[in-house]
Amino acid sequence: MLVKKLKETYESLNEQEVVLQGWVRTNRKGKGLGFIALNDGTTFSNIQVVYLEGLENFDEVSKISLGSAIEVTGKVVVTPEAKQPFEIQATKVSVLGLCEKDYPLQKQRMGFEKMREIPHVRPRANTYYAMFRLRSVLSMAIHTFFQDRGFVYVHTPEITGNDAEGAGECFTVTTRSDDKYEKDFFGKHAQLTVSGQLHVEPFALTYRNVYTFGPTFRAENSNTIRHASEFWMIEPELAFADLADDMDCIEEMIKYCINYCLEKAPEEMAFFEKMIDHDCINRVTKVANSTFRRMTYTEAIEHLEKAKGQFENNDIFWGMDLQSEHERYICEKIVDGPVFLIDYPKEIKAFYMRVNEDNKTVAACDLLVPYVGELVGGSQREERYDVLTQKMADLEIPQETLQWYCDLRRFGGCKHSGFGLGFDRMLMYLSGVQNIRDVQPYPRTPRNLVF
Amino acid sequence: MLVKKLKETYESLNEQEVVLQGWVRTNRKGKGLGFIALNDGTTFSNIQVVYLEGLENFDEVSKISLGSAIEVTGKVVVTPEAKQPFEIQATKVSVLGLCEKDYPLQKQRMGFEKMREIPHVRPRANTYYAMFRLRSVLSMAIHTFFQDRGFVYVHTPEITGNDAEGAGECFTVTTRSDDKYEKDFFGKHAQLTVSGQLHVEPFALTYRNVYTFGPTFRAENSNTIRHASEFWMIEPELAFADLADDMDCIEEMIKYCINYCLEKAPEEMAFFEKMIDHDCINRVTKVANSTFRRMTYTEAIEHLEKAKGQFENNDIFWGMDLQSEHERYICEKIVDGPVFLIDYPKEIKAFYMRVNEDNKTVAACDLLVPYVGELVGGSQREERYDVLTQKMADLEIPQETLQWYCDLRRFGGCKHSGFGLGFDRMLMYLSGVQNIRDVQPYPRTPRNLVF
Repeated sequence: MLVKKLKETYESLNEQEVVLQGWVRTNRKGKGLGFIALNDGTTFSNIQVVYLEGLENFDEVSKISLGSAIEVTGKVVVTPEAKQPFEIQATKVSVLGLCEKDYPLQKQRMGFEKMREIPHVRPRANTYYAMFRLRSVLSMAIHTFFQDRGFVYVHTPEITGNDAEGAGECFTVTTRSDDKYEKDFFGKHAQLTVSGQLHVEPFALTYRNVYTFGPTFRAENSNTIRHASEFWMIEPELAFADLADDMDCIEEMIKYCINYCLEKAPEEMAFFEKMIDHDCINRVTKVANSTFRRMTYTEAIEHLEKAKGQFENNDIFWGMDLQSEHERYICEKIVDGPVFLIDYPKEIKAFYMRVNEDNKTVAACDLLVPYVGELVGGSQREERYDVLTQKMADLEIPQETLQWYCDLRRFGGCKHSGFGLGFDRMLMYLSGVQNIRDVQPYPRTPRNLVF
Repeated sequence: MLVKKLKETYESLNEQEVVLQGWVRTNRKGKGLGFIALNDGTTFSNIQVVYLEGLENFDEVSKISLGSAIEVTGKVVVTPEAKQPFEIQATKVSVLGLCEKDYPLQKQRMGFEKMREIPHVRPRANTYYAMFRLRSVLSMAIHTFFQDRGFVYVHTPEITGNDAEGAGECFTVTTRSDDKYEKDFFGKHAQLTVSGQLHVEPFALTYRNVYTFGPTFRAENSNTIRHASEFWMIEPELAFADLADDMDCIEEMIKYCINYCLEKAPEEMAFFEKMIDHDCINRVTKVANSTFRRMTYTEAIEHLEKAKGQFENNDIFWGMDLQSEHERYICEKIVDGPVFLIDYPKEIKAFYMRVNEDNKTVAACDLLVPYVGELVGGSQREERYDVLTQKMADLEIPQETLQWYCDLRRFGGCKHSGFGLGFDRMLMYLSGVQNIRDVQPYPRTPRNLVF
């Protein structure tokens, strides 16, 4: 029986026999009896197994090491007066796989740094155990949100021949050990995608509302706590939608995801609140219940200018790219809540974003939230063929490789918008975990590829 | 308003005004009136828009080209006597984006081959339009099936340092143009994953029931209708589960997915039945309602020996790797339904599969289904450290790089099993579409990388 099932039905199982499998989290021997905290992976908290001296292999059981896999046959006993609502009184305990002495997760706490060297064992340590279930729950929140609203999920490709996506440095994909790409597997240079957006736009112009959710890659040689070389991204795209519609969708999605995780992973969120970030449940609940403000980039610059001197970088001017400290100042000090900054200078944003009537800004939005700064980036896309191709020419982006993308504007194009949510960043935001290496099962960063 | 919403609520909207956006699928001008078949991407079938000569821009509207994006304001009129349950009587039609003359999808049908050159336009052609929604629906079926049963979704890495996964040829991931991998981005040779299985096993030994669902890659230089260089795979892994449990899970999953798709994509499945494979709904319904047989490899060989001469490859012997024609013979002629072949010779299966007591076979299963042959492959994993490492030594698989994987057997290991479902193959199976290039948004195959 799964422990999850048992926890849901223990009241009706009082005094009945059950068979459970799981791993030993602690094993304490007392006088004439012992206690095993058992966890089978299906719920965050352990259940208590009591074994008495009368047990055939009492001595063996009392020596079962932490981490071992066992099978327990026993009686469910409801314990209304105890800390835990029920316990299992064991009639049989079998060892399925003993955990050997060099098991890295012993009782003393181990630092995150050390944990990153053992990605095959750390999921059993509490922080990771909570995190990787939250990761699964958040994934399902995303899918449920979009599928309930009729969005079509599109698997955009990981390997791409577009050299001009422009979102960052790329990994080459090859079967050769030189650069003769014309003789390579695909007959040309191939690389790992940095974004599914360009590839998903044709699907928005077919299904109206679509989303991607898959891995993306950056070959940037930067070692920060917020960047990984491989990460998952959600990129929705909405046809017949302008920037305001886009922001409505972002706001609804973020709130939905927060509520979904609070509801479906309450034990995990309570753990993060207790052990990682004492404010995390309050912080995300506040966001879920707030109305997201909208503020122009120009107004944000005015606020920042007034606060000059408070930042590490105090070179504040219209046209600058905001850094994390500036973003956090805006949402934490000025707004005290989530805020969309909109209408950024066109020079600091991507070529496909729609130019506003002022011809100086583009219809872009970044969602800034307290604690982390930017969480989502979106924009209305440039749907005017002439404006788009002129801009590409100005930026010296070769039109030839993206002619297909430009052609979408000639084949029944319409206004459309979309955004990108970094899935791993959202997990950091929800949990308060500070390093992206601790929210991914097998993080990949420069010079770091464990297994 | 979304057309999907309109179709669900048209009866209550009779004689009321609605505003719709979408693309023109056909535009026919009659005497004093015209008809537009409008599709906004939210449902498979079009709706009918009627416009009368009284319309201000009647001439313009009557010339709107196929594929154009328009906005229609009009009155819902329920038409119980007509073919379609309602129509829209337009009071205003605005052109949002005219489709230009070189639009590739004109009225005449275009072959699949040609379509593959225009992946940015083909989603609007009926077969692809049905397929890519089915793809989304099947994805959600997978997630819903596993999440409802408490399985934890794990994002196994795309970039891996394991050179020994052994499932096929690999792509190298690099930022260099030579083979000095020690100076490369990760400080060693990196490649794209061929399977998430090894990486997901630690999570099964934590959460009990887990699954992956993500892209995998093969650098095999083979041009067949069933192989792509990039494809999505589902790899569940179950702790405390033997091969029989594994097969129970596979059977339940396949049936669930079939029923989910028939329920959530009825128009799409009806289209495939009408245009692609006249038997497809019957075929998959039969599978959903059947009990999957289980047969040993050894028995299958006996059946094949009796049928010698009927195959292209008639060299039938115990120990051979079955080919598609043999697999189809077993499930189509012998069983007439889905069948698990089990207990394969250990020499033709992967190193991690559990050796049976006969020491000749392994606890592996392949699910064979009529029409396509193998659909799922699974096995119980070798949980005995000594047996596993001996086998690796025999096969000259270097233990060093997989020591972490072997160690899982020493740290509370237990019996566990898992399987792999090729997502794209499942789509081919459901729809009857024969070429994997026609079920993927942007198929990647040797010397073929469009965009």
